[in-house]
Amino acid sequence: SRSLNLAVIPGDGIGQEVVAEGLKVLSAVLPQDVKLETREYDFGARRYHATGETLTDADLDALRKHDAILLGAIGDPSVPSGVLERGFLLKLRFAFDHHVNLRPSKLLPGVDTPLKGEPSIDFVVVREGTEGPYTGNGGTIRKGTEHEVATEVSVNTAFGVERVVRDAFARAQARPRKKLALIHKNNVLTFAGHLWTNIFDKVAEEYPEVTTEYMHVDAATIYLVTQPERFDVIVTDNLFGDIVTDLAAAVSGGIGVAASGNINPSGDFPSMFEPVHGSAPDIAGQGKADPTATVLSVALLLRHLGYDAEAARIDEAVSADLAERTGKPARSTSEIGDALAVRVAG
Amino acid sequence: SRSLNLAVIPGDGIGQEVVAEGLKVLSAVLPQDVKLETREYDFGARRYHATGETLTDADLDALRKHDAILLGAIGDPSVPSGVLERGFLLKLRFAFDHHVNLRPSKLLPGVDTPLKGEPSIDFVVVREGTEGPYTGNGGTIRKGTEHEVATEVSVNTAFGVERVVRDAFARAQARPRKKLALIHKNNVLTFAGHLWTNIFDKVAEEYPEVTTEYMHVDAATIYLVTQPERFDVIVTDNLFGDIVTDLAAAVSGGIGVAASGNINPSGDFPSMFEPVHGSAPDIAGQGKADPTATVLSVALLLRHLGYDAEAARIDEAVSADLAERTGKPARSTSEIGDALAVRVAG
Ligand SMILES: CC(C)[C@H](C(=O)O)[C@@H](O)C(=O)O
Ligand SMILES: CC(C)[C@H](C(=O)O)[C@@H](O)C(=O)O
Repeated sequence: SRSLNLAVIPGDGIGQEVVAEGLKVLSAVLPQDVKLETREYDFGARRYHATGETLTDADLDALRKHDAILLGAIGDPSVPSGVLERGFLLKLRFAFDHHVNLRPSKLLPGVDTPLKGEPSIDFVVVREGTEGPYTGNGGTIRKGTEHEVATEVSVNTAFGVERVVRDAFARAQARPRKKLALIHKNNVLTFAGHLWTNIFDKVAEEYPEVTTEYMHVDAATIYLVTQPERFDVIVTDNLFGDIVTDLAAAVSGGIGVAASGNINPSGDFPSMFEPVHGSAPDIAGQGKADPTATVLSVALLLRHLGYDAEAARIDEAVSADLAERTGKPARSTSEIGDALAVRVAG
Repeated sequence: SRSLNLAVIPGDGIGQEVVAEGLKVLSAVLPQDVKLETREYDFGARRYHATGETLTDADLDALRKHDAILLGAIGDPSVPSGVLERGFLLKLRFAFDHHVNLRPSKLLPGVDTPLKGEPSIDFVVVREGTEGPYTGNGGTIRKGTEHEVATEVSVNTAFGVERVVRDAFARAQARPRKKLALIHKNNVLTFAGHLWTNIFDKVAEEYPEVTTEYMHVDAATIYLVTQPERFDVIVTDNLFGDIVTDLAAAVSGGIGVAASGNINPSGDFPSMFEPVHGSAPDIAGQGKADPTATVLSVALLLRHLGYDAEAARIDEAVSADLAERTGKPARSTSEIGDALAVRVAG
C-alpha cells in the first residue's frame, strides 16, 4: 500500500484555519489505499517569541524526511519585518533548493476580477526561487548615520537560470498554446538581463514549437491589466516573479484563490505548497478566511507527487464551488472546506 | 524680458512627432514677454549608428546650459537592448543628478481605464532616480559559459534616500489629502529596506499632518488595481518606481497620457521632461501617436520653472480635450496638438 507522509505547517494568523480545510479535502480525495501520515510543526511567530528560533538545522532534518510540505501562512505584526521572511520562508526555500516557484493564474467562471470585459486568463508563472535579489547578499555600513550605505546584490548563475528556464520551456511545450514569455529588465540590469536573455534564447532552439517573447517587467504589468489573455507560461527572476504574481493573482480572482508550489524538481528535498496570501491577522480566528487557495495548493502538491487524477478532482471541485457562489451568502472557512470535501469525494 | 532656453531631444520613433506638438503647445501658452529659445539635439539611434556615440562629455556640457530639457523618446530595435538606455537615458539622469523622478497618475473624465467601476485615481509617484539597482554596479564572470555568474548591485545611501523622501513628504503636505505611502520590499531586501524605512519614519516626525503607510511592492500592485483611490503620494526606489508607474499609467488612462519629470530640485543641472511611453517604432512617422503625454510633460516642465498658471492652462486644456474624445473619430498627432494649442491660447 502507498503512503503520503506530509509535513504540515499551519503557521500564523489564518494559517491554522485554512490548513485544516486543505487537509480535510486532501483526506477526502486520496485513494483508500494511500496511507496519509501528517506531522504538524509549530513554526512561526509563537515559536519565535517563545524560543527565538525560526528554523533550526534539526527542523530542516525533520522536514527533509517528508514527501512534501503544506504551509498555511507565516508572519505576524508582532515580529519585526524580515525576521520570519528571511529566517523561515526564504531559509526553507533556499535550504531545500526550491528553485521552481510555480504560480498558476486562472480566472474561473463566477469569480470576480477588477478588470473590465471578463478577460480569459489562464497562465502559469515559473518564478526562480533561489537566486536574484533574494539571496541576502549585500550589507550596510555606517548604519543609522547620515553616511549609511546599504546594498542588495542580485546573484544570478547560468546553472540557476538554465534549470528554471528549462522547466518553463517544458511546461510551455506541454500546454496547448505553447507560449513562453521571459520577463526581465535587460535594458537596465544588463549583467543579469543578458544572462537570462542568452540562456532563454539558447534553450528556445531546443523547443521550436514554443512561441517565445521577451518583455520588460514594467511593460509586463501593463499587459497583465490590458491583455492578460496574452500569457500562457511566464518565466522570470525571483523578485520580478514576486511582483507579477501578486498582480496576476489580483486580476484573476484575488489572493483568496492563488496557490503556489515551491518545487525542487529533482526530489532531493521535499517541495512545499502554500497559498499566496499571507497570515491576514486582521481576520484570524474568525472563520472568515477563504481556504480555496490552500485547497488549490493541495492540488499542486498532489500533482507534484504524481496524483494527477486527484489533483484534477480538486481543481474541478473548486471550479464548481466558485461558479455557484454568486448571490449566495458568505460561508465560513470550514463550510467551504466541507463543501469541497464533499465534491471531491463524490 | 524673460527667456526660456530649452534643449529639445526628439529622439527615436514617434519622438519627433510628439515633441513637435509639445513645442507647439508650449509656444501657444507662454506669455508674450517670454523669449523661447530652443536648440535641437540629435541623440538616439541615428546618431549612435552614424558615430557610435550616445552622450559625450561635450553633449553634457552643451545640455547643461539650458533651463530645461524636453525629450520625446529614445530607443530603437536596431540598437541592442541597454545601449541607449544605459548610454543615454540613464547616463543623463545620473550626470544631471535627476533624483526626483516625478510621475503623476490621474484618471481624467472621459478617459478609459481597464478597471471596473470608474475608480477615482489621482496620485503622484516620487521615484528615486539616481540609486538602487539602476547604478550599473555589478558584473559578469565566465560570460557565456555554464559557470557564468552575473550580479546587479542595488546601492542605497542615506543621502540619496533622505532627499527624495523629503521631497515626497513636502509634496504630500501640499496636497489636500496629505497621504504618503512608502513602497519597498523591506521584508526581503532588509539592508536597503531598513534604510528606506528608518529614514521614512524619521522624516515623518517632521510632518505630523501627513498620514503615512508602508506597503510591500507586491502588495502595492494589488492595491493599484483594486483600490487605486487609496493613493495620494507614493515614494519608492528606482526599480520599484519603474514598475509601479507603468502599472499606474495603465490603470489611469494608459501611457498615451502619462507624463514624467526627471528633476534636479537644486537647479544645479537642468531637469528633463519626457512622456513615459517609448519610441513606439511600429507607429512612427504615421501621425498616429498621441502627443498628450508630451504636452502634459511640458506642463510639468513649466511648473518646475515657476510658470504655474501656464502649466495649469495646459492641464485644463488636456482635460477638456480628453473629455470630448468619446465617440469622435481618431485625430492625427498634429490635429490633437493643434486643438490643445488653440485651447491654451484661448
Ligand atoms: C513573504 C515574502 C518573503 C514572500 C516573497 O517575497 O517571496 C511572499 O511575498 C511570496 O510571494 O511568497
Ligand atoms: C527605458 C528605461 C531605461 C526607463 C527606466 O527603466 O527608467 C523607462 O522604463 C522609464 O520608466 O523611464
